[in-house]
Amino acid sequence: MLKYNVEIKQLMLQPADFADKEVVVSGWAKTIRDQKAFAFISLQDGSYQEPLQLVVNRDNVSNYDELVHQGTGTAYTAKGKIVLTPAAKQPLEMQVTELILVGDCPADFPLQPKRHTVEYLRTIPHLRMRTNLLQAIFRIRSEAAYAIHEFFHNREFLYVHTPVITSNDAEGAGEMFQVTTLDLNNVPKTAAGEVDYSQDFFAKKTFLTVTGQLHAEAFAQCFKNVYTFGPTFRAENSNTTRHAAEFWMIEPEISFADINDAMNLAEAMLKHIIKQVLTRCPSEIAMLNKFVDKELIERLNHVLNSDFARVTYTEAIDLLQKSKRKFKYPVTWGSDIQTEHERYLAEEVFKSPVFVTDYPAAIKAFYMRQNEDGKTVAAFDCLVPGVGEIVGGSQREERMEKLLQAYAQKGLNVEEYAWYNELRRYGSAPHAGYGLGFERILMYLTGVANIRDVELFPRTAGNAMY
Amino acid sequence: MLKYNVEIKQLMLQPADFADKEVVVSGWAKTIRDQKAFAFISLQDGSYQEPLQLVVNRDNVSNYDELVHQGTGTAYTAKGKIVLTPAAKQPLEMQVTELILVGDCPADFPLQPKRHTVEYLRTIPHLRMRTNLLQAIFRIRSEAAYAIHEFFHNREFLYVHTPVITSNDAEGAGEMFQVTTLDLNNVPKTAAGEVDYSQDFFAKKTFLTVTGQLHAEAFAQCFKNVYTFGPTFRAENSNTTRHAAEFWMIEPEISFADINDAMNLAEAMLKHIIKQVLTRCPSEIAMLNKFVDKELIERLNHVLNSDFARVTYTEAIDLLQKSKRKFKYPVTWGSDIQTEHERYLAEEVFKSPVFVTDYPAAIKAFYMRQNEDGKTVAAFDCLVPGVGEIVGGSQREERMEKLLQAYAQKGLNVEEYAWYNELRRYGSAPHAGYGLGFERILMYLTGVANIRDVELFPRTAGNAMY
Repeated sequence: MLKYNVEIKQLMLQPADFADKEVVVSGWAKTIRDQKAFAFISLQDGSYQEPLQLVVNRDNVSNYDELVHQGTGTAYTAKGKIVLTPAAKQPLEMQVTELILVGDCPADFPLQPKRHTVEYLRTIPHLRMRTNLLQAIFRIRSEAAYAIHEFFHNREFLYVHTPVITSNDAEGAGEMFQVTTLDLNNVPKTAAGEVDYSQDFFAKKTFLTVTGQLHAEAFAQCFKNVYTFGPTFRAENSNTTRHAAEFWMIEPEISFADINDAMNLAEAMLKHIIKQVLTRCPSEIAMLNKFVDKELIERLNHVLNSDFARVTYTEAIDLLQKSKRKFKYPVTWGSDIQTEHERYLAEEVFKSPVFVTDYPAAIKAFYMRQNEDGKTVAAFDCLVPGVGEIVGGSQREERMEKLLQAYAQKGLNVEEYAWYNELRRYGSAPHAGYGLGFERILMYLTGVANIRDVELFPRTAGNAMY
Repeated sequence: MLKYNVEIKQLMLQPADFADKEVVVSGWAKTIRDQKAFAFISLQDGSYQEPLQLVVNRDNVSNYDELVHQGTGTAYTAKGKIVLTPAAKQPLEMQVTELILVGDCPADFPLQPKRHTVEYLRTIPHLRMRTNLLQAIFRIRSEAAYAIHEFFHNREFLYVHTPVITSNDAEGAGEMFQVTTLDLNNVPKTAAGEVDYSQDFFAKKTFLTVTGQLHAEAFAQCFKNVYTFGPTFRAENSNTTRHAAEFWMIEPEISFADINDAMNLAEAMLKHIIKQVLTRCPSEIAMLNKFVDKELIERLNHVLNSDFARVTYTEAIDLLQKSKRKFKYPVTWGSDIQTEHERYLAEEVFKSPVFVTDYPAAIKAFYMRQNEDGKTVAAFDCLVPGVGEIVGGSQREERMEKLLQAYAQKGLNVEEYAWYNELRRYGSAPHAGYGLGFERILMYLTGVANIRDVELFPRTAGNAMY
């Protein structure tokens, strides 16, 4: 078969290199317009936001009518000469000399060239990536993922795969999915009438992980700087635009390091991701800025060029209480900062991303390092304008006696954490880390309001298509 | 606190840059030898295979005895001058001027400096990465993962995250783990006495994915070149050295491409991974070559410099039948090629990696493209010397009528694949792909014989620690 030898992205980015050259492209038709003597096919191959215009001259191809009387979505391979078109919107077009109909596309193809709602597109996840919107989102998703690996690899961080199936319940919080091979129609029971997990695959009760942090800490306590980037799961029956049951998370963990080192790392990482996406996906970002969020480019550039502010939780509560703003949720020391508060701080007080630090111990997880004041812990959240919290992290409690106190205060069973405690027993070094929800940063990078549109096949309560 | 400002890897790779300079390092002691006036601490920080020697002069530090009478595993931060030692085994050492005991390590630390069996190390997964063997393996794991992303990113492949939780059973083969939030002590039943999945989290029966291929095909049919790199699961109760219940898989999928394009891609990918690991992990590879597999470097270089052979299944059967070798399993056209056959072909016939192509349709999956002969499919396996199969792939059946025939022949329910079939209905393009088990390639890269030693916290039948 005739093989394509260039991507449309290459043509678009380096038009001069291809002027008057003959090339072969393959892709799918967005639109086909037949004007009798000529037909115009706008072709996309998944590499670039803007289509390539194919100009098909009736005199140059046999079977002209059969070839061009086809629907949107038809797969073609085309050979022809690249002609620069400096006066047109697109930098070049192809004068076709050979056109091959690879796969036809009947008129019932659901993605005819008109506007489709995102709600409708979610009903056809296997096809919706063929729209301009989803094309842009998933190219940005891919580049953002690469930027993350690149960032940590450049800093000599070890990439670790923490287990997806776990017998730990990380925080005693978060509802978990159970993983089993038991027959639910006929669950084996012990003499005492309990589920007989000795017959389950792992001979114990197992779950899908909610975080790789605890396992990553084990690695950081000998590789020093490590990160995870893998799927995590929450069985929370919440039907919001920001929660999915399956999502990817990035969790760096750094040793011989404190809360400030972790915040510096988070700031540098966020800026690297934004910079690489702006650099590598300009046509995608431009499209999203035009059709999804008119402030997208401005907001991303603002974050890129801001020094992130830092404020303690106690100072933040003071700022919120002194504000004239009427909040839905009351502001009192000791309670959680709500999204409305987060956005007020980031958007109106600091007008930049802001780290809020040193939260009350009572509202944070057991593993966070206890401060000298006896009531706060070395935790931080990074709040960004337009979204609110995007990164959450902390220095970890490296002192055994303080960790044991925390279990007692939280009512956790110390036995469950025996292996984790041993990390404090043998050569314990101060360490810190954070978690970044990958889909959250993607929503920020694309301006897309619903997490269901930045995951390929989203898993939410009541929904696991295919 | 005093912060380290250099990694031991940097010192070791660029000694001249640090000659007579003062730096700060942090890490963990492998050994401590006190010789009264001096103590020698060999320190590792997880960045490099060989430790840095710290020379501590009794006259230079206060609390000398307390500082150096510590056990293996103790965490230290040390400041001092780097002195080149051209006559010694290591290129440099540190003359310590300030030594901080960060975290002590009592004598019950299980990893005292002596030889430990890999079987024993598997009982302490949270600590075993502190041994030289596991340090080497996990640094290679990290570099190999990066090399894979780098390879595909350089070729403009889209990185896609296919779902971990799925309602599809990909091949009708492979035992799957069920994912549920139902209470196993009290499973809700319908009036008919069946499990009432309407009450489960996703309102249907769901599983952990065994492959991302089908979902990746949906992406390839509009982004052209894509790859997955994520966890996959098999609930196979097999207790072998090569099978784990949770493992990571790389699955590229390419459109407007055939079986030869997929084989070319697999060959280039394998060579890129090997080349990058040899380049980036020379001290790790040298250690493994010395202690684990004395032919490792030779074997990797041989593969790097070989043109992979190609032979059809029918030709391979003929070669096996004509050989004088006594095989345990009989060789007949139509049956699977066993590991002993694979190794004979790669090691003795071709003396290089070899692609075996065009297997009988009856022993391969439904989605593989049917050849003109009516009995074989455009499948391939890549066999490498010393291991056997490492990559398996195929051209996919892009013709609807042929695909429908395959369901019928395999006894599969076409209704289950309605969305997958639509990819053939709308702009179907020839496409191909393959799967590479990440742990398999790691075993090949490290010479390690058991998959349990290349996964951090391995999940196998009866075993899911932490």
